[in-house]
Amino acid sequence: MTSALSTRRSTPPTGTGHVIAVDAMGGDHAPREIVRGAVRAVRTHGLHLVLVGRTAELTGLLAEEGAAGEIPVVHADDTLAMHEGALASWRRPRSSVAVACKLIRQGDAAALVSAGSTGGVVATSTVRLRTQPGVLRPALAVLFPTLPTPTVLLDAGANADAKPEMLVQFAHLGAAYAQTAHGVAEPRVGILTIGSEPGKGNKLARRAAELLTAAADTSPRLDFRGNIEGHDLLAGLVDVVVTDGFTGNVALKSVEGAVRFALEEVRTALTSSPVARAGALLQRRQLRGLRERVDSETYGGAVLLGLNGTVVIAHGASHAQGIERACLLAHELVTGRIIDQVRRRVATTTRAPAWLRLSPNEE
Amino acid sequence: MTSALSTRRSTPPTGTGHVIAVDAMGGDHAPREIVRGAVRAVRTHGLHLVLVGRTAELTGLLAEEGAAGEIPVVHADDTLAMHEGALASWRRPRSSVAVACKLIRQGDAAALVSAGSTGGVVATSTVRLRTQPGVLRPALAVLFPTLPTPTVLLDAGANADAKPEMLVQFAHLGAAYAQTAHGVAEPRVGILTIGSEPGKGNKLARRAAELLTAAADTSPRLDFRGNIEGHDLLAGLVDVVVTDGFTGNVALKSVEGAVRFALEEVRTALTSSPVARAGALLQRRQLRGLRERVDSETYGGAVLLGLNGTVVIAHGASHAQGIERACLLAHELVTGRIIDQVRRRVATTTRAPAWLRLSPNEE
Repeated sequence: MTSALSTRRSTPPTGTGHVIAVDAMGGDHAPREIVRGAVRAVRTHGLHLVLVGRTAELTGLLAEEGAAGEIPVVHADDTLAMHEGALASWRRPRSSVAVACKLIRQGDAAALVSAGSTGGVVATSTVRLRTQPGVLRPALAVLFPTLPTPTVLLDAGANADAKPEMLVQFAHLGAAYAQTAHGVAEPRVGILTIGSEPGKGNKLARRAAELLTAAADTSPRLDFRGNIEGHDLLAGLVDVVVTDGFTGNVALKSVEGAVRFALEEVRTALTSSPVARAGALLQRRQLRGLRERVDSETYGGAVLLGLNGTVVIAHGASHAQGIERACLLAHELVTGRIIDQVRRRVATTTRAPAWLRLSPNEE
Repeated sequence: MTSALSTRRSTPPTGTGHVIAVDAMGGDHAPREIVRGAVRAVRTHGLHLVLVGRTAELTGLLAEEGAAGEIPVVHADDTLAMHEGALASWRRPRSSVAVACKLIRQGDAAALVSAGSTGGVVATSTVRLRTQPGVLRPALAVLFPTLPTPTVLLDAGANADAKPEMLVQFAHLGAAYAQTAHGVAEPRVGILTIGSEPGKGNKLARRAAELLTAAADTSPRLDFRGNIEGHDLLAGLVDVVVTDGFTGNVALKSVEGAVRFALEEVRTALTSSPVARAGALLQRRQLRGLRERVDSETYGGAVLLGLNGTVVIAHGASHAQGIERACLLAHELVTGRIIDQVRRRVATTTRAPAWLRLSPNEE
């Protein structure tokens, strides 16, 4: 393990020098597709990666890809099983995710990319990287493929039960993400609720909307645009949508399921008669392009924001391309200094009540 | 008004004799499309309707449709505005919805069909029809177009903040709906949550899942199948999905928005090149059929369950066909005696704690 790290150190990265630790053992197609994606990320984009996992297996796979020695490997005995719950997984100190977090804590890496189970990666990295000073809870941010820039939805599942004050922080975390990754100078923020008029929603959403309205006038400014309904998630009305992790996860998966359902129905409709099938032949390229766009952008990866380190969670079913994309996203967030952006926003935000502060590293 | 009712009484309905009161003034295309839909429901299906609204206007429209005197009209001065909130609307005692509820209370009608604003119709009918004995809260049930039978989702928005005990009742309300409208002998029930393993979700969903598991062994039996995630809503894994009104509304609208988005993207993709356009011409019929199926079945109408009267809320944008369909649904529920089904299920259900009982008509 040490020797692998030394390898990396002996060839100092050109450019930014930010190293991304890639969990090679997490995901349905790990480790082969993870290694392939890492090689593509290095060769195509010049990223600086470390693969974390079982050394023997990974060096073998690198050799098979004709990339022996191109990416340093850090050994980890253990892996998080895809089905493992959060509690079980964060108790494994030698899992590839835990070892990757250790690299970040030591300053040997700036980001973690994993296609492992979301629950396991969230739990492990939250415990091992800890929240940034002042951050109440980390939030899982996902993207919807709106134009011209994607819409950030958070929390997509890290906190099933949230407090109104957390949603205000999520707004700042999401705004930092939209600024860093999508270049949106002043991100517009909405709250996911039911009904378009102010005062609509459940208790949590109503109180959070009040706090967000108040926060709009404080520094750092928040461009709060009010209520967003479920059918607006893909309409691009705002850049950031905040909600609790339960509602966010249900909304995300409802959108995913509905898009998949609709495309499947289209496929059936377009092949239901000889004439329609002839039409479908003429359109093969367009339909494939659409499916890829909706798939990759909606489900490409989630970012866990608010920790002392950048964490990108690729879809569990990721192949090489998904891993490559997740590495690129991690790289963008690191070079855009998202951690600093969050620190600046949260440090100047009105402090939450003491009883709400969860993390032991509150300063 | 009295004369109109007498007209109906002087020509006693053949068949079941269940009369449906149609709010002729609610909806984006009221009253013309409502009247048209009512005429179709009467002529095509032999339903027994009463139109409620401004008499002069409605008799004129009936004459224009060549249906003068075919449907009795009951006068109502007032209407609920589409944008009106729940509070404002239920204070209008002479609105067409309030008058329709009065007909139900008097025994002159068994059901109400309205395309008015959901909030207004829910609030008005809840106050005026009241909940059935033992029912904690009415729940809004919507359908997803799964095969072979639709999936019932409830609550879709009547109760933004719900208690776990309510979700157990929603399961019984939904099961009664699936039995009555879809002929499902033993409806399978799931709870909308995040994660597939037991114990996943927020506090409300976790506690409700415990209660549902316990309820599965009591009478009337509930075939509780555990957790349902957002992406399963259109998969037909269960017949009834229960959730609180906030989550249910977000999920419903997320699905609606995503299906609309996907079909729009398909349309764009299929017309993005001359070759693809040629293909699209060959498929016009199939695509139109698909759009209608997804639109009509998903968004056709919601049913407010648990009141002393059947309430069907058609989509605000309904044209004649949507109203006709809503009338048919109301007719099915009335002839299937859904009120009795709910009474039987709720009466034998373990009673909820006294502090949870909201309605003054608790017996």
